[in-house]
Amino acid sequence: MLRAALCAIFLLCALPSLAKESQGHVSVVLLGATGDLAKKYLWEGLFHLYLDQVSSGHSFTFHGAALTAHEPGQRLMFEVLKKLACPSDVSPDRCAVVKDQFLKLSRYHQLKTSENYTALNREIGTLLQQEGLEEAGRIFYFSVPPFAYAEIARHINGSCRPRPGAWLRVVLEKPFGHDLKSAQQLAIELRTFFREEEMYRVDHYLGKQAVAHILPFRDQNRQFLDPIWNRHHVERVEIVLKETLDAKGRTSFYEQYGVIRDVLQNHLTEVLLYLAMELPANISSAEEVLQRKLQTFKSLQGLESTSAVLGQYQAYASQVREELQKAQDYVSTTPTFAGVLIQLDSLRWEGVPFLLTSGKALDERVGYVRVLFKNRAYCTQRESLREMGKSQCGAKQIIFHIGHGELSCPAVLISRNLFKPIMPEGSWKEVVDHPQLHLFGLPLSDYYVYSPVKEREAYSVLISSIFHGRKDSFITTENLLASWEFWTPLLDSLTQQVPRLYPGGLENQHLLDFEMMGKELSFTLEEPVELLHSDGQTPSDYRTIQAKFRQSPLVSAWPEELIAQLALDIETAAAKAVARCGEFHLALSGGSSPIVLFQRLVRHHYGFPWRRTHLWLVDERCVPLADPESNFRSLHNHLLQHVRVPYLNIHPMLVHLNRRLCVEEDQGPELYAKEIAALVTNASLDFVLLGLGSDGHTASLFPHSSSGLEGAKTVVLTESPVKPHQRMSLSLPLINKARQVAVLVMGKGKHEITTQISRVGQEPRKWPISGVNPSSGQLVWYMDYDALLG
Amino acid sequence: MLRAALCAIFLLCALPSLAKESQGHVSVVLLGATGDLAKKYLWEGLFHLYLDQVSSGHSFTFHGAALTAHEPGQRLMFEVLKKLACPSDVSPDRCAVVKDQFLKLSRYHQLKTSENYTALNREIGTLLQQEGLEEAGRIFYFSVPPFAYAEIARHINGSCRPRPGAWLRVVLEKPFGHDLKSAQQLAIELRTFFREEEMYRVDHYLGKQAVAHILPFRDQNRQFLDPIWNRHHVERVEIVLKETLDAKGRTSFYEQYGVIRDVLQNHLTEVLLYLAMELPANISSAEEVLQRKLQTFKSLQGLESTSAVLGQYQAYASQVREELQKAQDYVSTTPTFAGVLIQLDSLRWEGVPFLLTSGKALDERVGYVRVLFKNRAYCTQRESLREMGKSQCGAKQIIFHIGHGELSCPAVLISRNLFKPIMPEGSWKEVVDHPQLHLFGLPLSDYYVYSPVKEREAYSVLISSIFHGRKDSFITTENLLASWEFWTPLLDSLTQQVPRLYPGGLENQHLLDFEMMGKELSFTLEEPVELLHSDGQTPSDYRTIQAKFRQSPLVSAWPEELIAQLALDIETAAAKAVARCGEFHLALSGGSSPIVLFQRLVRHHYGFPWRRTHLWLVDERCVPLADPESNFRSLHNHLLQHVRVPYLNIHPMLVHLNRRLCVEEDQGPELYAKEIAALVTNASLDFVLLGLGSDGHTASLFPHSSSGLEGAKTVVLTESPVKPHQRMSLSLPLINKARQVAVLVMGKGKHEITTQISRVGQEPRKWPISGVNPSSGQLVWYMDYDALLG
Repeated sequence: MLRAALCAIFLLCALPSLAKESQGHVSVVLLGATGDLAKKYLWEGLFHLYLDQVSSGHSFTFHGAALTAHEPGQRLMFEVLKKLACPSDVSPDRCAVVKDQFLKLSRYHQLKTSENYTALNREIGTLLQQEGLEEAGRIFYFSVPPFAYAEIARHINGSCRPRPGAWLRVVLEKPFGHDLKSAQQLAIELRTFFREEEMYRVDHYLGKQAVAHILPFRDQNRQFLDPIWNRHHVERVEIVLKETLDAKGRTSFYEQYGVIRDVLQNHLTEVLLYLAMELPANISSAEEVLQRKLQTFKSLQGLESTSAVLGQYQAYASQVREELQKAQDYVSTTPTFAGVLIQLDSLRWEGVPFLLTSGKALDERVGYVRVLFKNRAYCTQRESLREMGKSQCGAKQIIFHIGHGELSCPAVLISRNLFKPIMPEGSWKEVVDHPQLHLFGLPLSDYYVYSPVKEREAYSVLISSIFHGRKDSFITTENLLASWEFWTPLLDSLTQQVPRLYPGGLENQHLLDFEMMGKELSFTLEEPVELLHSDGQTPSDYRTIQAKFRQSPLVSAWPEELIAQLALDIETAAAKAVARCGEFHLALSGGSSPIVLFQRLVRHHYGFPWRRTHLWLVDERCVPLADPESNFRSLHNHLLQHVRVPYLNIHPMLVHLNRRLCVEEDQGPELYAKEIAALVTNASLDFVLLGLGSDGHTASLFPHSSSGLEGAKTVVLTESPVKPHQRMSLSLPLINKARQVAVLVMGKGKHEITTQISRVGQEPRKWPISGVNPSSGQLVWYMDYDALLG
Repeated sequence: MLRAALCAIFLLCALPSLAKESQGHVSVVLLGATGDLAKKYLWEGLFHLYLDQVSSGHSFTFHGAALTAHEPGQRLMFEVLKKLACPSDVSPDRCAVVKDQFLKLSRYHQLKTSENYTALNREIGTLLQQEGLEEAGRIFYFSVPPFAYAEIARHINGSCRPRPGAWLRVVLEKPFGHDLKSAQQLAIELRTFFREEEMYRVDHYLGKQAVAHILPFRDQNRQFLDPIWNRHHVERVEIVLKETLDAKGRTSFYEQYGVIRDVLQNHLTEVLLYLAMELPANISSAEEVLQRKLQTFKSLQGLESTSAVLGQYQAYASQVREELQKAQDYVSTTPTFAGVLIQLDSLRWEGVPFLLTSGKALDERVGYVRVLFKNRAYCTQRESLREMGKSQCGAKQIIFHIGHGELSCPAVLISRNLFKPIMPEGSWKEVVDHPQLHLFGLPLSDYYVYSPVKEREAYSVLISSIFHGRKDSFITTENLLASWEFWTPLLDSLTQQVPRLYPGGLENQHLLDFEMMGKELSFTLEEPVELLHSDGQTPSDYRTIQAKFRQSPLVSAWPEELIAQLALDIETAAAKAVARCGEFHLALSGGSSPIVLFQRLVRHHYGFPWRRTHLWLVDERCVPLADPESNFRSLHNHLLQHVRVPYLNIHPMLVHLNRRLCVEEDQGPELYAKEIAALVTNASLDFVLLGLGSDGHTASLFPHSSSGLEGAKTVVLTESPVKPHQRMSLSLPLINKARQVAVLVMGKGKHEITTQISRVGQEPRKWPISGVNPSSGQLVWYMDYDALLG
């Protein structure tokens, strides 16, 4: 080790320029110096940094480190270094000279033990002292697996910090945890060794030139984008990274992570933030950008399992079995393809779909962002005469082409019918090649196309940023945890989901195409297995069964058909009532089953006469109306806010009067009864929807209590055996005055009680439901097969 | 005349088949028998009717009538008849025989005087008697200018009705009035002579085969269309009739009507109804279809001048000057081109733009309906490999191609990626020709294309319907008046609007392309004239005046700009409040001025954060909330029912408690005060909108009463000098705690009080408005020029 250090000093002395007018010395330590990433990108990035900075007055040493012993490690490393190339704008002569210097400034260290780190620190100190160099700072680049982070961090913090006043920058590579909990854990560990400003978490996507230009583009083109960068004008946003490679050879990593953790949680999410965030006043301020990112995270709508479609290429399972030595029956549900629909709760983006898509073994390698605008124009000019590129009727879009694909370079494309953008002249140039190309439905000539004057590798860009201490292209701890907080619920909800198998490559055809239905995603093609096994039993063969239950008509079906039938019956009742007397009085129950019904009514019954409908509650919990437990709140969220019922036709139960809940002297039940009496002819509601509890209760009329079972009272306060105990409910006498009563019963959990009540007579004190018996109206039971047949 | 009658009888006798097993005799009288329409379509329609019905057992006579004397009239008419041709599926032999019969059954009458009509009636009677024919009915086809309607109707009713038991059908051709008033006038006149079921108002568009197939198509394809025929799936609907001809030779008619009355009010509106209506159970029931149409009319959103773009071809003005002998400086503002954006207030169609477009002297002749669906798919498959016609990423649309255009025939086109439609086999056939054609952005091969097995002229279709008494393709009086009721406000608002001039034909290029901005339409290209004549006085130079009034900022402008500014200021306040604390508390006053503001907010402020807004009342009358005098009701009708404020954020004043109004012991003011205190931080409302009464009152705080002017009470009961006397109002102390207070004052009637209070100090007992003086918030006065300057 001493020999190496002396050798280094000797070499430094041989470079006379270095000692003069020094801006300070920088030591770069690359941990994992012989690994894949280092070989492919990091050494090149460091070499390019040196090329850029060789005349800046800074002096450098580059320390490759790994666990391998000195001799073989050094050999491995120098094999990589010898192959380093310069960017094309550097002359061969200069390249040769600088590369020679770079090699001389680079050495290999085995870094394993505490002593190794102490020795490295000593070596740097000796060098600085002997050369009379001021230390500017040290960069430690962690290109190692995350399990090694804590140990290395402890060593650096313990024995390799630079002199006070000089900076320390540690560069971390993903994965940064596996979910929110593990990411928090890792963050806590790292925080014991490093300050936040010392850590540079790399997401190399932020070094991609097209990605790095999103914010500058939005900033420089504010005048054009301000009016259109919102939900009124943007139709959808696609953020896509497609790969042709598969996970072969990397399954030990991949099997733990999958495509969502590998690509969506980090790269594509960061791109989404750049697109969706409110622009900060100063886009170069890392702090301002971070604040906007965090705000944007807050406005993301939570994801559910239906927000995603998942795939897995067919060969993956056998690759896993082979590489991880799993048994032949081992099944992996790790997705290698995912499409996720993200929506934002913000004034700017409400309702605009952001589609994030990535996968391995796909039919092409390409990364892009596509912002598609709504077409708001009507072209009176006949179609064949329009100049499509200029016509307002052509597609309008902005593409940030990240790389590869048919264009095979980073680029920004703007439809010519949108605007001619402002681009920084020194770094981006207009391109007019490839006139034969067709991209995103348009010939390339219909776009303004710009590409970087000088193409740069993402890692070179980021290493330069690290050297300059620019933190805006790195992931802070807050940013990272916000992202995991967003993604973890989806990941948890998907663990049991079986991905669609796809053959890989061109054979995928349109097997992975997917579409949005409301906030849900589904593959466009039916699962092929289903198609093969079809034996004439199509869904329409499952008809609803019509029969009798407790002497009343029974409708029974699978849940979906059952709800469809009930919704239809309610609309029919509504139409009749409106035709008869101009209005429809509908009383609805709480609970979870009606929610599906409400959704059905909202999504399929466009002709429902909501403006003529009065909505009453069958029962209510004694909680404020805005409480999550309130039946009214559920009714509001699932039905009222989607349809147009006039305010005055909405009749929440009066459980909250004089700022207190269900106090007898406030006379809530009496007032509600009066309201019904005043508005409903003969207090005979047109349609009452009831549920059935597994104890035989209905509405909020519970067994073993006489409250509400008989007498003149039409609305009563009752006691539930479960919390919240206090309830308000329509009484049996009022329910039995209704023209139509429907009892909706769903799920296996209800099978026992339905069996029981099918056999008993009218014993409302024991089973309140058995007292439902309309005097002149019609009772119909709606039961799914689970409830009826178990 | 007698001679002609005898001649007719002689001819009938010569046709032995007619008298046998007669289904009854039908007399058809074509008024205007030598006019353009008769020459071009009506005689042909009658001839085709005869061809169809010649063996049906009915006997016929055809009476052409006009004002021309017998000899020349007869000559003119028979020149037309001799040119009649048969449809191509009739053999030449049969055609010759039947045509010969048709000519023999046809005669000409001069119908001018009362005696002429009596003679015609007598002639028909004589014929029936002599031939022993039972009369089935009479058809009178009015192909005459509308001013002649009443006179002819009187004659027919007076002396030409058929025998009791036989039917009378009078067929009327547009125009049916010029606006709502004149249409009502005409309807009343006609109703004195004919019963509703006797009248057949023709809109020949309803006889176009593609139009006539819209309802059957929707009906037969319910299974495919039900899920997608709504706002979630339809992107827009275009209803278009483009003509290449201009109005030359017809300007005396056209100058009075213009394109909206000529084409949009009738043809395109009827098509819109067919597309947008809820399907009746029986689409052949004229009564059911009518009811659905009338419902649809009710759901159409009112049009404003900004809902339309207008054009006039350049040669029109000189054609008018020449044909109507106008002076050289005569300027016509009659539009010959219009695009109109219609939207519906229905669950099915809310937010879907229906674009109606028609014009003369355009670049092509074509009529079509285009229903464009939203694209909800993401195609993972690379673009160049997709089969566009089948890919879910291709455009999805349904076209009812009415006629002409590149396809040059009626047709129905359905994108292949939508569904394969069910078409009636006998009457529509699949077409696979024209593979080279490109229509609506797609090659024809990407559609399922159907065209009629037998092409039929609209008039032939309609004449057949009239003969069979099928009324579903005709315009009833209710239908007609509903249409005028819808269109008249737009027509009134456009009288002063100067249409954009266009050169005509191909030279129009994209001068007439237009686009939607929210609910407004505008031409895409700037007005070229404006560019030429621009002398710096652009509309943005008419700025609102900013000054001071009673030491507070004053905004003054013409009413429209004033309201626009106030609406903008409220939205800005809302956005700030939501950014600050997640919600916005807005208190609104009653009265008429705020109504315009509400409309502005509804129609122009899409970004308003209604879901985060709480709405409070500044004051209320002690009447039930549903009473027409209730401030809340006005707020509900003009604002609440159009925006999405959550139910629990709406806070009507508690004037109606325990089923009685503003009784002190019910503590309405105290409860409302508590509600404010509970929900609004420091009871400091974000924005309070006040008005100003001509006696100096504001909110419901009236002069000469101390109630609500000071003290701890934040909500009070007050007495108004005018009915209803009892009021509830926010108090001055509460108003003065608000962050922003706006006083809106409009109209000449307010000039005196504004002058007065501009001079006085703070004397709230005399002028309650003078006590408005926010302690830490901002007061702004919004006055229109009338109120400020008189």
